Amino acid sequence: MCNGRWSGLLHVRDLVANDRGAVAEALTLSLAFSEDEVRVALDMFDGGMNGDYALVGVEDEGSLRGYACFGKAVLSRSSWYLYWICVHPASQGRGYGRAIEAAVEESVRAAGGERLVLETSGRTDYERSRRFYDGAGFTLVGQIPDFFKPGDDCLIYCKVLA
Amino acid sequence: MCNGRWSGLLHVRDLVANDRGAVAEALTLSLAFSEDEVRVALDMFDGGMNGDYALVGVEDEGSLRGYACFGKAVLSRSSWYLYWICVHPASQGRGYGRAIEAAVEESVRAAGGERLVLETSGRTDYERSRRFYDGAGFTLVGQIPDFFKPGDDCLIYCKVLA
Repeated sequence: MCNGRWSGLLHVRDLVANDRGAVAEALTLSLAFSEDEVRVALDMFDGGMNGDYALVGVEDEGSLRGYACFGKAVLSRSSWYLYWICVHPASQGRGYGRAIEAAVEESVRAAGGERLVLETSGRTDYERSRRFYDGAGFTLVGQIPDFFKPGDDCLIYCKVLA
Repeated sequence: MCNGRWSGLLHVRDLVANDRGAVAEALTLSLAFSEDEVRVALDMFDGGMNGDYALVGVEDEGSLRGYACFGKAVLSRSSWYLYWICVHPASQGRGYGRAIEAAVEESVRAAGGERLVLETSGRTDYERSRRFYDGAGFTLVGQIPDFFKPGDDCLIYCKVLA
């Protein structure tokens, strides 16, 4: 788990109710999400605590650095949605996002999942996120013009898990 | 409301709890939906009764002929999902589907909605459904290979409302 970017104490784990504050802080400070998005993401964190979604996070030096929320697509045999993935802005660029994404894949595969699907924004300020998904092996499979608001398309990505 | 295909007593209305049996029958007998899909559609009917979704149906000669379940995409400004649309198989080919789809559009527009998005199957036995969406002015905006199961893609359609 130590590759020079991390402290060597990096630890991927399921989230617990007590992580809510750190998740809220990461979502809010990242500036990638609107107030509405933060609210929905925290609602889904609460849903995750009730078993509606899966939640994993990465901890380093005792602090939660980021997390992901994901879940099976109910009417599919083996497709899962990656709903949220967020790294605290003070910890970005250090590979935590990759570690979280890899943990999601591992968890999905262990549950028999064969693909991950996610939706993100086509706005220019999401270019870094899209590069992250491209780099992680996701393929663009759809684009809904102006879905979020005028000029803000919904991009749909899919990754087939090995 | 009378155009020769209908009895002249066609009536589009919001659904009520009492419609659940007719909806279940239409979903089950249409053979378009798996047992799981019928279960999810009925869960969403129940959710609609609690205000989570909108539900409209078309009644003709006192019988519910079909219905649709739709709702706003929470993180969008003006995009709505058309989750389910189903016409009782004994009433298909008589324009009820069009009447329901038009009622959905009217309702969405009245609520400030500007586009309808739906997902359907790429299977050959859904060819008729896809022709319906094409004819109603929807455009294919995405395709997720093998999403539902191997050989069963998820097709994503969008219609911008005038």
